[in-house]
Amino acid sequence: MNVAIVGATGYGGIQAVNLLKNNKNYRISYLGGNKTSGSRWNANFPFIHLESDPIIEDISVENISNDSEIALLCLPNGLSSTLTGDLLKKGIKVIDLSADYRYKSLDDWKKVYSKVSSLHKRKDYELCKEAIYGLPEINKDEIAKGRLIACPGCYPTSALIPLVPFLSQGIIDNEGIVIDAKSGTSGGGREPNQKLLLSECGEGLSAYGLINHRHTSEIEQFASYISGNDIELIFTPHLVPMARGMYSTIYARLKDPGLTSDDCRIILDNFYRNFNNIKVLPVDTYPSTKWVKNTNEVFLSVKVDNRNGKIIILAAIDNLLKGQTGQAIQNLNIISGLSMDDGLQMTNHYP
Amino acid sequence: MNVAIVGATGYGGIQAVNLLKNNKNYRISYLGGNKTSGSRWNANFPFIHLESDPIIEDISVENISNDSEIALLCLPNGLSSTLTGDLLKKGIKVIDLSADYRYKSLDDWKKVYSKVSSLHKRKDYELCKEAIYGLPEINKDEIAKGRLIACPGCYPTSALIPLVPFLSQGIIDNEGIVIDAKSGTSGGGREPNQKLLLSECGEGLSAYGLINHRHTSEIEQFASYISGNDIELIFTPHLVPMARGMYSTIYARLKDPGLTSDDCRIILDNFYRNFNNIKVLPVDTYPSTKWVKNTNEVFLSVKVDNRNGKIIILAAIDNLLKGQTGQAIQNLNIISGLSMDDGLQMTNHYP
Amino acid sequence: MNVAIVGATGYGGIQAVNLLKNNKNYRISYLGGNKTSGSRWNANFPFIHLESDPIIEDISVENISNDSEIALLCLPNGLSSTLTGDLLKKGIKVIDLSADYRYKSLDDWKKVYSKVSSLHKRKDYELCKEAIYGLPEINKDEIAKGRLIACPGCYPTSALIPLVPFLSQGIIDNEGIVIDAKSGTSGGGREPNQKLLLSECGEGLSAYGLINHRHTSEIEQFASYISGNDIELIFTPHLVPMARGMYSTIYARLKDPGLTSDDCRIILDNFYRNFNNIKVLPVDTYPSTKWVKNTNEVFLSVKVDNRNGKIIILAAIDNLLKGQTGQAIQNLNIISGLSMDDGLQMTNHYP
Amino acid sequence: MNVAIVGATGYGGIQAVNLLKNNKNYRISYLGGNKTSGSRWNANFPFIHLESDPIIEDISVENISNDSEIALLCLPNGLSSTLTGDLLKKGIKVIDLSADYRYKSLDDWKKVYSKVSSLHKRKDYELCKEAIYGLPEINKDEIAKGRLIACPGCYPTSALIPLVPFLSQGIIDNEGIVIDAKSGTSGGGREPNQKLLLSECGEGLSAYGLINHRHTSEIEQFASYISGNDIELIFTPHLVPMARGMYSTIYARLKDPGLTSDDCRIILDNFYRNFNNIKVLPVDTYPSTKWVKNTNEVFLSVKVDNRNGKIIILAAIDNLLKGQTGQAIQNLNIISGLSMDDGLQMTNHYP
Repeated sequence: MNVAIVGATGYGGIQAVNLLKNNKNYRISYLGGNKTSGSRWNANFPFIHLESDPIIEDISVENISNDSEIALLCLPNGLSSTLTGDLLKKGIKVIDLSADYRYKSLDDWKKVYSKVSSLHKRKDYELCKEAIYGLPEINKDEIAKGRLIACPGCYPTSALIPLVPFLSQGIIDNEGIVIDAKSGTSGGGREPNQKLLLSECGEGLSAYGLINHRHTSEIEQFASYISGNDIELIFTPHLVPMARGMYSTIYARLKDPGLTSDDCRIILDNFYRNFNNIKVLPVDTYPSTKWVKNTNEVFLSVKVDNRNGKIIILAAIDNLLKGQTGQAIQNLNIISGLSMDDGLQMTNHYP
Repeated sequence: MNVAIVGATGYGGIQAVNLLKNNKNYRISYLGGNKTSGSRWNANFPFIHLESDPIIEDISVENISNDSEIALLCLPNGLSSTLTGDLLKKGIKVIDLSADYRYKSLDDWKKVYSKVSSLHKRKDYELCKEAIYGLPEINKDEIAKGRLIACPGCYPTSALIPLVPFLSQGIIDNEGIVIDAKSGTSGGGREPNQKLLLSECGEGLSAYGLINHRHTSEIEQFASYISGNDIELIFTPHLVPMARGMYSTIYARLKDPGLTSDDCRIILDNFYRNFNNIKVLPVDTYPSTKWVKNTNEVFLSVKVDNRNGKIIILAAIDNLLKGQTGQAIQNLNIISGLSMDDGLQMTNHYP
Repeated sequence: MNVAIVGATGYGGIQAVNLLKNNKNYRISYLGGNKTSGSRWNANFPFIHLESDPIIEDISVENISNDSEIALLCLPNGLSSTLTGDLLKKGIKVIDLSADYRYKSLDDWKKVYSKVSSLHKRKDYELCKEAIYGLPEINKDEIAKGRLIACPGCYPTSALIPLVPFLSQGIIDNEGIVIDAKSGTSGGGREPNQKLLLSECGEGLSAYGLINHRHTSEIEQFASYISGNDIELIFTPHLVPMARGMYSTIYARLKDPGLTSDDCRIILDNFYRNFNNIKVLPVDTYPSTKWVKNTNEVFLSVKVDNRNGKIIILAAIDNLLKGQTGQAIQNLNIISGLSMDDGLQMTNHYP
Repeated sequence: MNVAIVGATGYGGIQAVNLLKNNKNYRISYLGGNKTSGSRWNANFPFIHLESDPIIEDISVENISNDSEIALLCLPNGLSSTLTGDLLKKGIKVIDLSADYRYKSLDDWKKVYSKVSSLHKRKDYELCKEAIYGLPEINKDEIAKGRLIACPGCYPTSALIPLVPFLSQGIIDNEGIVIDAKSGTSGGGREPNQKLLLSECGEGLSAYGLINHRHTSEIEQFASYISGNDIELIFTPHLVPMARGMYSTIYARLKDPGLTSDDCRIILDNFYRNFNNIKVLPVDTYPSTKWVKNTNEVFLSVKVDNRNGKIIILAAIDNLLKGQTGQAIQNLNIISGLSMDDGLQMTNHYP
């Protein structure tokens, strides 16, 4: 299977190269990047050696479709939508890591991504409806049939994996859910950015995007779909002085306040028992993002306040793997008819 | 005023030396430490030069009371209680940075600090009742009359400063408060500890002490006192890979869902308008712990979710200053009849 | 004394604001910055509160000279030279933090700063000759008489302070000196820069600019001047994953191999005995950059390999204070007739 | 091949578990640790899942030899020597990661490790003579025949790999070599240690062990053996605020000052052309420790100062892999008759 990596020099693309270069199921058939186009891969990335040392090519439908059957779009929001329609027409399946197809309604997308929306005049309403939300542990069957997969954002992944078992089975209240999330700096991308300089964000932590962060609506859309009710929740992201890692601390209320921490652990465990990459920890063992670094795993832990039936769920992921490209490769595996974890057994390399 | 620093070589004590060494209102009359006792200060701390290069002395009531009028106890929990009674009898006022006198009821303390409690058979019920909870912006008048001040924990400080204005005026529900707190590693102290090695906690974030963390009950005790009702809340601490800094992200429900972010900002601003060290930020400006590092300041910001009347309050402090020794010096100033901020105008030294 | 801070929003400028805002000897009479001009200081820097909340002004000779007697130029290389001549003509003394006047010969500067040189066609040969190299512990008398002070680079400061005592007294060979230097990321400035993102340079160390780094020639020029001989040395900078701090590990050969570590320590101690900010540590005590963070101090330590008369000298400074703006304020004090350390007694705030 | 990992819960042991658990050539037949003995592996390391979840056993010759053919000793210095003789007698081959067998002369070892030496009264002079210094790219043939391999220290590895090509061919002077080395904190081990707390060593850099560091003599011994002359050199280690990574910046003098950087690059390239894990970078490309993190690779770069024939060689390794356990596995492969890189193709997982 020939796979094009479009936007290969950002963090999403770099992960894709690392995950696919020794993967026997796939061949990297195209590496696209605009700023570095025309130069050799190994000169740009001496530490990610590719035997063939390919030239980084311009990003165009022509170049991508030349020799590939599937395209991984690791592009800024908005840009993906300028390529996707044409790629699909040429029979290229698209796995999109941007936000462009995460909303069923293009109008919703336009509201949330209003700035980007003004740059790219989109009319692909039908594609938005067609696109499958690529949360593989939940949506596997639909993904298998899709030709356009919208990979979830990193924050939504870290929030939905722990929430879905409780929402889908009506175990927690739909009202009053709080997601307090913490991300490493690589979530902000590889483009030069004053706020992400080590000097600026090292030795400091801050919240950002209160109430209005774009991932709030993405989480709400899918959580509502799962629960069958309109869900409004609070989501607060924080920037943490580390390169990799994402942590969601989720607060909710049990409908049945008699459930114990152990009951809730069993609920999680049962829900994900067929998924090796999702590990439910014993009660009172709490994960660190360091435990999942460089892996596609999700570590979950749950604790109930017996006094009042409040529940806290913790989820740790690697924001660039399960939160981004690792998940994209799960989707790639599924649409290729492979086991979703194929090629994703990575070593954490502690510490 | 002669001040004894008892437990001078931990982080609390080091801050005390730094804050008092050039403070014209006080003289450091005693430096106590057990492991280093008998050695010279400057040999231990070449980077905190004391002109007189005093000898670090054994910790005993005798030594402390020799030449001091006030003792700052920067000691592990439990140990403070073995000295405090005798110091008070000798007329030495005590400002205690440990948890020993933070509970009005010694029995409550024994429940929460059960391990420590088994080592030190305490019977000082009366002292617990007498001790003043040293949150200076709230409790100033009582502190001024006290001879035993129990300085709040770092987490309670970062949670109570933002909560008190809303709780005391009945603006938020007593039920459903969530405090998601993040701390730098110096909060764990200076004793050797595997979990706090840079190799172990660098490049990682994790929660700990869910539901049962000792500061939950401390926050609840004072929040209940302020609101006049029994408050049960959720408090979740996290360890963040930075040395200094503490952040509390607080979630609550407005009783009047019509209040806006600006209304709530004004409420905070009014409440603390006489306190220079508490800065309320404009709506949509969010603090970083980096902004308060090396200062005794509290930066607050507030935001309301207009859809449903949820409120988020952010508080950033330096855990070793406003969260520990800076606050102790405020208390020291108050019981010495000085302005509480005297000698506490520090420079942040960004970045 | 009215002081203009030109380039106030970079790291050099921020330090200047912090050092001058509570300094009774000076008044900040102008804050200049191009990108932020027209906006209020406090809105840009909520964590560095200025009572008067001045407007950040455009950078022009007109604006600067309006109300100031001295200008601190915290500008990129090349830009300083476009203002300095005109400022001096208007009677404004100039303390320049850039490299523009560090070379006695403008032609030398043009060779070293060839790229910048092509943007700014300089002809101010006379000013280059006139400018005083602002290393205050060495050059105090000349600085006092100057009207244009060229502050040394951070690396040269950290290398020359330890080397000068040995070079000026002919104690070490002129040949074979190696300076292995390590810098925190703030040395790379506050402009967006991919290489300085926390994600890129966090958890990694690398050398850069081998042989050809611009500070090699600056160090060689002054070392040659001090020793009276042409000195060629090796200087290798490294980027270290921390915001602040600079460390030089210097290797040389004693002319008299019989000198001991203690002898060499005494040589350093005697040379700098009148300078409070330069601390010579006992033999076998080695400084950390953490010890000098947020101060204008230099910590030195020296060790001799008795087997062969090799000497190692260690120097730790804060790259933004003694390595940049702290040193500029020393120069400002000297040309203002004050003690050079006035207003520079800072607290390190360990840890 | 059944392999015992002795000392499995320190950083060396953890790497061994990670490298062997999915390695088809080996079976982990024993996991030994003293503090955790009797407990299950997965309970201690939820993030390094072992299917069989073995019990961590007491460390004893009996236990080790029960089911293993080779023992990897990941133990503190001194302790290895208490087990090695008996293991060899039972026919167990030993790959020792400690310093116990790195010196041909036990008396030399006793001088350098005098403190440890006083705890363990060693008399195994013959074993010291027999042991092979396990630098696989240099010593492959001897290792293949050995039954006791002494793996080099991390610093010696990072210094010798770049030096050997120049020393063995007489290209650089034996006199005047300087090794300025920088290490991440995991080099200091996983035992609780105040100096390695994030609060203490984060945001700071310092040198330590000047002249007298134990690795100086280890480097000198092997460098002398390679060059055929007695070599005295300067080695200075520094502690850097990152968990993983080691960097050696090496200064020497070319015998033929006419050699260019390119000539020297070719010398390195030729010397290591058969070793895939050693990468010689183009002139003016400088490695970062981040490039080798989580791999067994060595990145080298070389630069000559044309003015005077000085040469700078840079080497970056992962201190826990090529500097420790990765190298041990290379040795394990060689004595098992496998290709030395078998199972060591790791992904760097940038950033």
